Amino acid sequence: MSTPFKSVVALSGGVGGARFVHGLYGALGGDALSVVVNTADDFEHWGLWVCPDLDTVMYTLAEVSNPEQGWGLAGETFEAMGMMARLGGESWFKLGDRDLATHITRSSRLRAGESLTEITACMNKSLGVRCRILPMCDLPCQSRIETLEEGTLDFQEWFVRRQGKPALRRVFFEGETTASPQVLQRLEEADLIVLTPSNPYVSIDPVLSLKGVREILERKRVVGVSPIVEGRAVKGPLGAMIPALTGKDPSASVIVEHYGTLLDAMVTETGDHTSITSLPVLGTNTIMGGRQDRERLAREVLEFAETLR
Amino acid sequence: MSTPFKSVVALSGGVGGARFVHGLYGALGGDALSVVVNTADDFEHWGLWVCPDLDTVMYTLAEVSNPEQGWGLAGETFEAMGMMARLGGESWFKLGDRDLATHITRSSRLRAGESLTEITACMNKSLGVRCRILPMCDLPCQSRIETLEEGTLDFQEWFVRRQGKPALRRVFFEGETTASPQVLQRLEEADLIVLTPSNPYVSIDPVLSLKGVREILERKRVVGVSPIVEGRAVKGPLGAMIPALTGKDPSASVIVEHYGTLLDAMVTETGDHTSITSLPVLGTNTIMGGRQDRERLAREVLEFAETLR
Repeated sequence: MSTPFKSVVALSGGVGGARFVHGLYGALGGDALSVVVNTADDFEHWGLWVCPDLDTVMYTLAEVSNPEQGWGLAGETFEAMGMMARLGGESWFKLGDRDLATHITRSSRLRAGESLTEITACMNKSLGVRCRILPMCDLPCQSRIETLEEGTLDFQEWFVRRQGKPALRRVFFEGETTASPQVLQRLEEADLIVLTPSNPYVSIDPVLSLKGVREILERKRVVGVSPIVEGRAVKGPLGAMIPALTGKDPSASVIVEHYGTLLDAMVTETGDHTSITSLPVLGTNTIMGGRQDRERLAREVLEFAETLR
Repeated sequence: MSTPFKSVVALSGGVGGARFVHGLYGALGGDALSVVVNTADDFEHWGLWVCPDLDTVMYTLAEVSNPEQGWGLAGETFEAMGMMARLGGESWFKLGDRDLATHITRSSRLRAGESLTEITACMNKSLGVRCRILPMCDLPCQSRIETLEEGTLDFQEWFVRRQGKPALRRVFFEGETTASPQVLQRLEEADLIVLTPSNPYVSIDPVLSLKGVREILERKRVVGVSPIVEGRAVKGPLGAMIPALTGKDPSASVIVEHYGTLLDAMVTETGDHTSITSLPVLGTNTIMGGRQDRERLAREVLEFAETLR
């Protein structure tokens, strides 16, 4: 498409963000797009370093992801998991056989001293992905979930193992506090930054928590896409997190309030947009089907962003 | 069976040794049998610690091994390998999906500080194996293959990656020089030690090279089973190694000469036994088919060993 944007940076978590980024990738091509991906859900499992959001973005852009669930690989098998269970290993987090190759490769290269940024670039290139996919930082920074009655849990422990059941008090981040130099450089060079429809609390906030990121975004054109559609989260734990963390019902307005002055404009589902008056808003169909639908939404967001010049 | 032996220790490498040990396990049951397994072929691959002989013995005794090739798991799949190739990883050593669970489990537990002996015991228990399987030592001791024209290679590099082609000059071992305390204790308590039909140079010699092992064997009743049948190695690189290392044609006699004073008696294929006059020898059918055939051979070896009292 003809777009004035030369350097678009998308901040993304897992499935929802990845689907939107897939649309941006189709609309913009690889050169003009960089994706900064949340790594605060990353964790060690079976002694391997697993980066769920990085992998979801990579698999989605490489068009090898499982189209129904949005994460993992299409046609995946689970033979290793069956053997792992026989050997008494943990089986609460599902890792497919082909997916394992990703975690094994990454873990081995991390131990050999390569950075997560380098390894991610290399794996994406191997899978034919032509845009930059950048982990938000190179060292572990992890989402911690403080619960009302069960202490503080790691994100995957809370979300996958405990199925998001322990009631939330707050979310905070532990570990690395600085974005990678590559992320800061891309953000500085950006002429448009998109907060994709990922979970603000555990996917976008970790990126925003890193030193320097918020300051750059305050100076840039930033457009958000709502992960809440007609009062419900499209996917994941967000629908339950909003009432627990804010005392309010889920809505696109809550998302706008959450991001506050960072946002220059917002994109929501048609109908949801009428409740937002504090900034320019585009109401459209934000539920993404296949590739063409994702591209259609991305084009609409880019055209809308252009009107903000 | 009724046997006077209360504590039999088998020294074993991979396929040939494992099949014989499977017979011993059937004939003796788990309590009277300990297997000391070569770990000098172990190596790091994809950042995982792979122990081919330990796994071949474990899978064989657990009756989950691939019956045709003798190593790896029955009905194994190779999805992770395909993805690994796409990611640009090394693909010269074949690791199956279920097999990967073994290497992942072991590697993770080794990094957590458990000993190879502990981990091996635990995995065998998980797979229902009721005899002791002991790695010869807990720290890496590795077979190094000095070649005539291509310098010194690791065993797997020489045998699998280079398909055993670079001409041999000699084999030596690097790394740990002491057997594990558990191995020395079992050998001390043994009333019969069997050198299984594994490769003397790269499967049995590594065990014999460890401090204390040879001294104990000199004092014990030791019976060997020939891996050479009618001038040919049943499996693996032995047939080519004998001429390269000794200048002689492969034969059961060469094996007897190699072990020298350690042996009290030898078991060979019928016909091969007539060339051996330096010690008591049993000629029988040493080519092992299925479980019953392995047990038949093991019983014959035990009965023969009994006559040596």
